[in-house]
Amino acid sequence: MATETPVVTPSDLRDILGFTISLARKAGSLILEGSKAIHAPSAKDVGEKKNSVDLVTEYDVKVEELVKKEIALMYPNFQFIGEESYVAGENELTDDPTFCVDPIDGTTNFVHGFPFVCISIGLIYHRRPALGVIYNPFLDHLYTGIRGQGSHLHTSAGPQKLPLSSPRPLPSLSQALLAVEWGSDRTAPILEAKSGSFLKLAGDPSGSKGPAVHGGRMAHSLRSMGSAALNFAMVAQGGLDMYWEIGCWPWDICAGTVIAQEAGCLVSGDSHCKHDGDVAEAILTGRKYIVIRAIGDTKTESGKDAQKRLVKEFYETVTEVDPL
Amino acid sequence: MATETPVVTPSDLRDILGFTISLARKAGSLILEGSKAIHAPSAKDVGEKKNSVDLVTEYDVKVEELVKKEIALMYPNFQFIGEESYVAGENELTDDPTFCVDPIDGTTNFVHGFPFVCISIGLIYHRRPALGVIYNPFLDHLYTGIRGQGSHLHTSAGPQKLPLSSPRPLPSLSQALLAVEWGSDRTAPILEAKSGSFLKLAGDPSGSKGPAVHGGRMAHSLRSMGSAALNFAMVAQGGLDMYWEIGCWPWDICAGTVIAQEAGCLVSGDSHCKHDGDVAEAILTGRKYIVIRAIGDTKTESGKDAQKRLVKEFYETVTEVDPL
Repeated sequence: MATETPVVTPSDLRDILGFTISLARKAGSLILEGSKAIHAPSAKDVGEKKNSVDLVTEYDVKVEELVKKEIALMYPNFQFIGEESYVAGENELTDDPTFCVDPIDGTTNFVHGFPFVCISIGLIYHRRPALGVIYNPFLDHLYTGIRGQGSHLHTSAGPQKLPLSSPRPLPSLSQALLAVEWGSDRTAPILEAKSGSFLKLAGDPSGSKGPAVHGGRMAHSLRSMGSAALNFAMVAQGGLDMYWEIGCWPWDICAGTVIAQEAGCLVSGDSHCKHDGDVAEAILTGRKYIVIRAIGDTKTESGKDAQKRLVKEFYETVTEVDPL
Repeated sequence: MATETPVVTPSDLRDILGFTISLARKAGSLILEGSKAIHAPSAKDVGEKKNSVDLVTEYDVKVEELVKKEIALMYPNFQFIGEESYVAGENELTDDPTFCVDPIDGTTNFVHGFPFVCISIGLIYHRRPALGVIYNPFLDHLYTGIRGQGSHLHTSAGPQKLPLSSPRPLPSLSQALLAVEWGSDRTAPILEAKSGSFLKLAGDPSGSKGPAVHGGRMAHSLRSMGSAALNFAMVAQGGLDMYWEIGCWPWDICAGTVIAQEAGCLVSGDSHCKHDGDVAEAILTGRKYIVIRAIGDTKTESGKDAQKRLVKEFYETVTEVDPL
């Protein structure tokens, strides 16, 4: 059955945001319930001898079903792509408004009770991320963004515009706090390329304190928190300068992309991309991502150039590989 | 002037804890004030052209001075070791009660506005950590511990005993979520040993999905948050399984040691240590640390043996180096 592409206005996006925030909080409650089931199992769970992995899968599916059902009720003519229901080749992007959802981002953290876990709900419209909500129920941190309408962090203290403070200069990687992740591809070619890249990012090339790391950039440091969506949010906030990722999926970064872009970040793909800030389908589904925070005034060419220079310096440093 | 070693009873420790919690919260307010000065500088700071590093140093010193002054007023016959006032060779440990303080743990995070920053206040008595308070004012997470009297996480929801849930099994590193840090020693020998160790911890030795990482342990993943004290606290909580560190100092881990031990963790030093849970002077000042969460019942030999097995497996995997 052929239907017309629904039209979504900026005002519609504000309504959708209200719905999505409320949905993310509902999903957050279910995630907390899942965490209790894993870490303080009831007699029922113990009786059924469910292990952590079963319970994680169970709650991943439960949260996605909740989100999918509520979206279908409220926006029956919108499309849906979710981590748990994704089938390669069957979820082609269209111009339709399409929710793109990771029910539990940071599942390894979730299993271990490491409190950096979130639900990530993005909306793609005309093949670009247009709205995003990321909610960490463990810390009660809620990030939101609407294309053209800014992004915010909502805590118990109320909403704050992102970035949280006016963007400082960032002349080179040597001044940067970077997020990287070890990921789930652990074979030698991928992991050796990654660990070699991390070594160069952190290494001291000067030789002044001991043998030099050839090609080292001496970044301030590297951080790994284990959630792509929360890394995007943290770069948007200004707490991290850059985040580089190979191997994750559109639902991991869709919401984060809008939140970051609206905070003045540059979001792009691998070294072959144009880095012009247009996150179209090739980047969105390309499984290689880079995001860099606002530097100075990102509405000016000099602000944008500063970001592009950093991305260039970054890709001159690391070894890129293709995900499994 | 020779004075007698003050006697500190378990009941005294509870009084000292009350004082230390209140002091940590005061220090936390000053840390938040410093963060504002760095990230949203007032006209005065801008006028004086203070940069982030100046401001961090200024607040590091301010916080330590506050803490030192209040301790001297309340406990004039206790000793004091602080990061900012430490002079190598002049702060020999004695049997006296000795406060051991890191005013701002996670200074790189502090500079960047990455909200994993804390004050860490430990008390050493008879040359062993006896009391600890770790406070992250950005997330309002407060961790406390007293030797022999348990450890707790205090949030807006009230105090919770650590670990937060009953300790699950941990048969091998392949099931573990590990914390590691890139640290400040960035010369080739140290950083190559570290990155090679991280590669082995994360690498897949099976060859089933592609070329194998020789000697790989395929840990669930690696996390880096950039604060030694908060890593100890997170292992105590049960959100991380192990944390390995080379290069930090007694004030980074003194408070965390008590909090972790009281949560059933094993705290030890490098591979040459006995790993019997006695954190005496050699380990405390040895600048190499390992902490592993409770596994099963740590009051039993089998619980302790499980921890020792993991430490052994860990040290068989990594390359140890001496800090600068």
